[in-house]
Amino acid sequence: MNRKKMLGFKKYYSVEEALKEFKTRIQESKEYEIVNVTDSLNRFSFENVLSNFDLPAEDRSVVDGYAVRSIDVSGASPSNPIEISIVGKISAGEKSSIVIEKDQAIEIYTGGKLPNGSDCVVMAEDCSRNGDKLLVLKQCFKYQNVSRKGEDFSKGDIVIKKGTLIRPFHIGALVSCGVDKLKVFKKARVSVISTGSELKNIGDEKDGIIDSTRPMIISALKENYAEPIDLGIVKDDLNEIKEKLRIAIQISDLVVITGGTSLGNYDLVPDAVESIAKPGIVVHGIAMRPARTTGIAFDGKIPIIMISGFPVAAYISFNLFFREFLKIFYGTVLNPVPEIKGKLTKRFPNPPGIRSFVRVRIIKKDNDYLIEPLRLTGSGILSTLTRANGIMVINENSEGYDENSIVNVEITQPIEEVNNDAKNIS
Amino acid sequence: MNRKKMLGFKKYYSVEEALKEFKTRIQESKEYEIVNVTDSLNRFSFENVLSNFDLPAEDRSVVDGYAVRSIDVSGASPSNPIEISIVGKISAGEKSSIVIEKDQAIEIYTGGKLPNGSDCVVMAEDCSRNGDKLLVLKQCFKYQNVSRKGEDFSKGDIVIKKGTLIRPFHIGALVSCGVDKLKVFKKARVSVISTGSELKNIGDEKDGIIDSTRPMIISALKENYAEPIDLGIVKDDLNEIKEKLRIAIQISDLVVITGGTSLGNYDLVPDAVESIAKPGIVVHGIAMRPARTTGIAFDGKIPIIMISGFPVAAYISFNLFFREFLKIFYGTVLNPVPEIKGKLTKRFPNPPGIRSFVRVRIIKKDNDYLIEPLRLTGSGILSTLTRANGIMVINENSEGYDENSIVNVEITQPIEEVNNDAKNIS
Repeated sequence: MNRKKMLGFKKYYSVEEALKEFKTRIQESKEYEIVNVTDSLNRFSFENVLSNFDLPAEDRSVVDGYAVRSIDVSGASPSNPIEISIVGKISAGEKSSIVIEKDQAIEIYTGGKLPNGSDCVVMAEDCSRNGDKLLVLKQCFKYQNVSRKGEDFSKGDIVIKKGTLIRPFHIGALVSCGVDKLKVFKKARVSVISTGSELKNIGDEKDGIIDSTRPMIISALKENYAEPIDLGIVKDDLNEIKEKLRIAIQISDLVVITGGTSLGNYDLVPDAVESIAKPGIVVHGIAMRPARTTGIAFDGKIPIIMISGFPVAAYISFNLFFREFLKIFYGTVLNPVPEIKGKLTKRFPNPPGIRSFVRVRIIKKDNDYLIEPLRLTGSGILSTLTRANGIMVINENSEGYDENSIVNVEITQPIEEVNNDAKNIS
Repeated sequence: MNRKKMLGFKKYYSVEEALKEFKTRIQESKEYEIVNVTDSLNRFSFENVLSNFDLPAEDRSVVDGYAVRSIDVSGASPSNPIEISIVGKISAGEKSSIVIEKDQAIEIYTGGKLPNGSDCVVMAEDCSRNGDKLLVLKQCFKYQNVSRKGEDFSKGDIVIKKGTLIRPFHIGALVSCGVDKLKVFKKARVSVISTGSELKNIGDEKDGIIDSTRPMIISALKENYAEPIDLGIVKDDLNEIKEKLRIAIQISDLVVITGGTSLGNYDLVPDAVESIAKPGIVVHGIAMRPARTTGIAFDGKIPIIMISGFPVAAYISFNLFFREFLKIFYGTVLNPVPEIKGKLTKRFPNPPGIRSFVRVRIIKKDNDYLIEPLRLTGSGILSTLTRANGIMVINENSEGYDENSIVNVEITQPIEEVNNDAKNIS
């Protein structure tokens, strides 16, 4: 074996340093596409989107009742009913040219345009009607039960800001404001390459180890607003890795390459990257566990994330960096990851200077959350991710936590309760 | 107007009562489909999925180094190097028939099968090699740097339980365990009908109010693991509503009908539902705001959620009930909604007996979160949802909160910081 390689990493970057090196070189995307508003769910808006008109377009009733002049029903109550005359009717979405005059009312339904002359709507249940005569039993203030013209959005108001992750209520608002198409960022195209002569795809008849990291990362990309490009498995051959990397760089906004990222003889990825990418590797070796062999490189503005072939390490380092990539690429702020505080069931030490990502089991017992660390080692052991429902991050300045410490945990899967069903609304 | 109707709801169900009436009538789905594991992201498993083999299939090295007998290197250190002989080489995924004997080593790479006779792997960086001679500079315990056969999953182990929402790491685990296809629940088919003669679709040339609630709910269904069926707009005509409902019930696992759910003359939905569904309406009128006109009906086991045409009310009541539907239909536990605690910027009263869903703006300022209530009224005002980034739920037993109270808020959109960038790693 190559002695130089085997001496290990000369320096481990702290997670913060590594993220800084990564983030400073990433640029916001300049590519958009135009989509129908109804196809814009989970896309990021490419620009501020403005309302095409006032919403509502006019003063509208928000109840079923009677449009009146507030001055005419001032002081009305069950013991002081005020009688006025009904002079017409307006359904939802309808308009009427009738102008309300003193002591007149118009029957109006939710969404109907407030007739000229009136300034409020008294609810039907606060009236007593007899033919065209109306007894008003409750007073009504100016603009009560009225949605004012433009109060939701005025024409030209920003409905959604550039960089907004479009959720269902944004679609409702955009539709209401007459926006039928909009510009969204093109999805980030992310190539995924696995390296390792021992790897095979599921279903392949040959001997070997099934590559699980690639399908996992491809799924994580789908889950995270990106368009994965599956570039398959490359064997441990420097030229083949270089060739695949060249293709990946040409067609991608980001490249993820798994396996062969350490310093062993078959760890050819760093050499391949160094030989074709400029500026090349900017970070290699990070003071975190798992995933200390993670590397970051750039070819121009295209980032290359070199992650371990071990699935747990791969998943954790991929998420760490990809989340930051998304923020900058789409110019967005992301929702925080759900977190919970709980009581650690056993002491958990942390080596100084290392940021640890500990898979834990969160258990709800009575009104407490218990946090039970699963194993920290075994970055190949996928069951620590599937059996875990949380990740406890221990920062590098911490020596770990004592038993019964209250710790913060990111939730990755649902929390099952030991004693069921006390409270499961919302 | 119809006096009886206009008297309002005789009784308001509490949110808990309404949810109970809803949940007790919902059944877990019995319909599945078989999908490729790589297409199973965000689907719910229909059964426990078992591993097809031991993972790893044999004892494997998790590092690059030398397979040895731990007894031979006991006590090795830089000052007490132990010399042994290299008798072969095993790459990742390779096997070797060589049996290690006393004071022998085999060069082995990550993922290589541990050769017979050896019981641990000393890392390459803890050795010094000269041709076939190896100086071991660090002792190695039994099974150190070895992943034991079946330690991740044994053949027949449950990889994912029935009802699991399949995430990327589940896909990694399933692939590793040789699962290439699996049964997932068929997606819930949910019909969405809007009612209202005043409504039009975006792009329609005629006068009217654009129906924003239907596209919003359809998007929310897509976001929530369901297959929406868009049944369009029906005008306020009892027979047309009945006809549309009949179709919906035939083709759906759940029906959402918006608008016309109150007690006005044009509120025909309850009558239509009552006339065709058995047992019909089980809840109408809920002590919540917004969305007090929400109704729940069943035709056999098919639930019908009657929600307001006002988009904010519609969104809140849809989410409240649909989340519970999902849990039962897919036999699953859902991830908790992300929440945050913050300080209320102004007093917020709550009427007794009502559960309020208050749209709020969460603002991060220095290390505090400030919670600023937006308006509570205006269930038609979509901008309260797009401008809000959280919902504060005030339970019916609360009279509200004083200024500076610490309150719990569900996060609906990202939180922007007033002072930037202090800490945005996660």
